Amino acid sequence: MHKIVDVELGTDILSANEAIARDNREILRQKGVRAFDMLGGIGSGKTLLIEAIVDLLAGKGKKCAAIVGDVAGDDDYRRLKAHGISVININTGKECHLDAHMVEHAIEDLNLEGVDYLFIENVGNLVCPADFPLGSEKRAVVISVTEGDDMIRKHPILMGMVDVIVVNKIDLAEYVEVDTRILVNDANKVNPNAKVILTDAKHGRGIEELAHALGLL
Amino acid sequence: MHKIVDVELGTDILSANEAIARDNREILRQKGVRAFDMLGGIGSGKTLLIEAIVDLLAGKGKKCAAIVGDVAGDDDYRRLKAHGISVININTGKECHLDAHMVEHAIEDLNLEGVDYLFIENVGNLVCPADFPLGSEKRAVVISVTEGDDMIRKHPILMGMVDVIVVNKIDLAEYVEVDTRILVNDANKVNPNAKVILTDAKHGRGIEELAHALGLL
Repeated sequence: MHKIVDVELGTDILSANEAIARDNREILRQKGVRAFDMLGGIGSGKTLLIEAIVDLLAGKGKKCAAIVGDVAGDDDYRRLKAHGISVININTGKECHLDAHMVEHAIEDLNLEGVDYLFIENVGNLVCPADFPLGSEKRAVVISVTEGDDMIRKHPILMGMVDVIVVNKIDLAEYVEVDTRILVNDANKVNPNAKVILTDAKHGRGIEELAHALGLL
Repeated sequence: MHKIVDVELGTDILSANEAIARDNREILRQKGVRAFDMLGGIGSGKTLLIEAIVDLLAGKGKKCAAIVGDVAGDDDYRRLKAHGISVININTGKECHLDAHMVEHAIEDLNLEGVDYLFIENVGNLVCPADFPLGSEKRAVVISVTEGDDMIRKHPILMGMVDVIVVNKIDLAEYVEVDTRILVNDANKVNPNAKVILTDAKHGRGIEELAHALGLL
């Protein structure tokens, strides 16, 4: 059996991560901030969905902040900054997911004054982030119809542990000849408790439904 | 520093993987088989590209085989089997990439009689497979224009270590408003030695160019 361990400290990374995640959640609660972990494959539309939700909530007097994880670069950071919110960029280098320790430091650095909601955009990856809770209240996973109609059933572990499954880019479904009903059916099968929301972030469709599903409205 | 180790044996997984990868390559060479590792994000079109190359090569009297990696399911396996070639399906469960040891066992089980080329389709993931050579002669990475124009610069480590960078689904570039020149420029910058090939696997565009880039024709 393989395990990810800290070779210097000899500690089990997964247990240590869970403890820090609990601390993160408590710290955020004390500040009156509710956090949401946005997972999903690369290019599935996580950033654009967060941008749309941030704008929607701003219109309702709610203040957001964000933490964005990417192995390299600051594309997503700059996009979210343009919406006038506090953002911290985490470049994970060779790490394929955020962990609670990275988020702990980001929370220290982030200006959370008056912030209601914190969106944590994970590294684009449908496998590795599953085991690393970050301290969020809810987790949403985003897939895009352009990835094909087999994406839900190919990732049962991650899909099974989230609160909301977002099927994005539904405007492209006809071009890629993907039947979104297959994705919705698979989602209901693999995780009967998750809410399944269809979105087209580019044209603002499904954003209110997603905000409701996350309990933001 | 975190390291992936075998907690029972205490061995460094990465060094052990490299040794097995060298063995795999030697075993395949002795059988007259050249192997190619196809990397890429989920839903980027890896399977369809392999299907198209298999058909192209079959028309030229060349015999192919495949190993497909997915965390769950056998969708890709069934698609490749339909082309009349030998295929082994590896479900990695919670593992986010193939490793040389998995491939070693697949090679033992696979009927390689008369096979010229072996395609190894890795788990859809642009981070984790980078550190795990499998024994292939060349590595190609596939991205899709639907993932956005920032995919190359967001993954410099993986892009920097492959021989061929494939930009797929170019038929959808206009719908998603992605300028493929940005992707090609980024690819040339991050890896000047890699060949960059534009493909539309669905409609058979760029397949011959890709086969040439991999040295198959």
